[in-house]
Amino acid sequence: MRRRGSFITLEGGEGAGKSTQMARLKTALVKAGHSCTATREPGGSHGAEEIRDLIVTGTANRWDSITEALLIAAARRDHVERLIRPALKRGEWVLSDRFVDSTIAYQGYGRGLPITLLTRLRRLSCERLMPDLTIILDLPVEDGLARAALRKGNGEMRFESETIDFHRRLRDGFHKIAAEDPERCVVIDATQEVESVSALIRAVVRARLPDSGL
Amino acid sequence: MRRRGSFITLEGGEGAGKSTQMARLKTALVKAGHSCTATREPGGSHGAEEIRDLIVTGTANRWDSITEALLIAAARRDHVERLIRPALKRGEWVLSDRFVDSTIAYQGYGRGLPITLLTRLRRLSCERLMPDLTIILDLPVEDGLARAALRKGNGEMRFESETIDFHRRLRDGFHKIAAEDPERCVVIDATQEVESVSALIRAVVRARLPDSGL
Ligand SMILES: Nc1ncnc2c1ncn2[C@@H]1O[C@H](COP(=O)(O)OP(=O)(O)O)[C@@H](O)[C@H]1O
Ligand SMILES: Nc1ncnc2c1ncn2[C@@H]1O[C@H](COP(=O)(O)OP(=O)(O)O)[C@@H](O)[C@H]1O
Ligand SMILES: [Mg+2]
Ligand SMILES: [Mg+2]
Repeated sequence: MRRRGSFITLEGGEGAGKSTQMARLKTALVKAGHSCTATREPGGSHGAEEIRDLIVTGTANRWDSITEALLIAAARRDHVERLIRPALKRGEWVLSDRFVDSTIAYQGYGRGLPITLLTRLRRLSCERLMPDLTIILDLPVEDGLARAALRKGNGEMRFESETIDFHRRLRDGFHKIAAEDPERCVVIDATQEVESVSALIRAVVRARLPDSGL
Repeated sequence: MRRRGSFITLEGGEGAGKSTQMARLKTALVKAGHSCTATREPGGSHGAEEIRDLIVTGTANRWDSITEALLIAAARRDHVERLIRPALKRGEWVLSDRFVDSTIAYQGYGRGLPITLLTRLRRLSCERLMPDLTIILDLPVEDGLARAALRKGNGEMRFESETIDFHRRLRDGFHKIAAEDPERCVVIDATQEVESVSALIRAVVRARLPDSGL
């Protein structure tokens, strides 16, 4: 079946501005006349959100790293099958706050799991589905954590409470991911003020996905 | 590290008598002087029991079959790492009400997932750990479901509510598993009265695992 919508993901560390920018990009796409589904990972679909609770709450060592990767794969499978694919088939634009690259960054570069293992799990979850465009919001680790700390707490601290070194590996990991897949990924400087970052994102979407009408 | 304890699993369809016989086998092993941990799947460890709730409650189509297999793999990983391996290392005997063969039967023969996929997930969860002895309780599907229906309901009906045909595939599946791994698996006629089945199980344990002292 021909897909009429496009699939865009926002990636980056804690406090990079993913949620802030998702909302603004969605507004721009809706203004341009698109039906637009905004979602997030882990979670996104009803079942995946239940699995999310197990992943993001509790102590840092609550799960062994392979158990965590399996839970993420289960949540992603549900999200892809029950929400993302149906929305794309209906012709909607789908925006996701985190997706497969966060797994490579967090569980691969962060926790040290083999990338090949994570790639095999990704195929189980997503089969051939990949984003059309991935925007990686980049900023120094300390700046991101400082921003994240300003948000209201909701108990979802399992990753924010990791070491600085862990967050540095994440940032480097996202750079590697972008370097390996430049057709899909664009790294954006997220240190600028909110509206400047939004304008940059809209320019990238316009250039990469002309159907967007941005 | 040398394992001093042994790992025994009980398998079979709904109402076959696994829970009933586990309790009796545990009593016999404790009488024979062993420290004995009785556990179950899905679940068994603290984290895995939380995942279990997602697996066994709700409607039959709550999860896509691959999502379900990933959740089971995650729960098993936690169960193996946090409960089974530590207990075996302490020298305990571990009895589990269901384990890897239930996945082959339910998700493989029942739901139709490729056995190779399930075997790969098993290796992620268990690495090289396999039971020393697996007792498969066998009885006609209708008899098992009738027994299961007599139990107090607890909302864990996702599998019991499957079709008769699904349960027939399970039973045939367990027979195939036993035929392929006769060194590990023993099929026992579970239609007899409780004490006769228990005596048969003790005889099998005595013969296969002389250290049991039964
Ligand atoms: N460009 C920016 N400059 C300053 N603060 C920002 C910027 N973008 C987002 N923030 C603030 O930083 C915090 C984290 O942003 P958020 O969008 O929640 O990040 P993420 O979803 O990537 O963790 C929020 O309080 C948000 O208002
Ligand atoms: N050999 C048997 N004969 C008759 N009833 C049995 C026998 N074994 C178990 N039962 C009863 O059947 C029901 C199901 O047994 P249970 O041990 O819970 O099975 P399972 O754990 O395999 O689903 C229980 O009510 C139990 O008391
Ligand atoms: Mg966010
Ligand atoms: Mg039982």
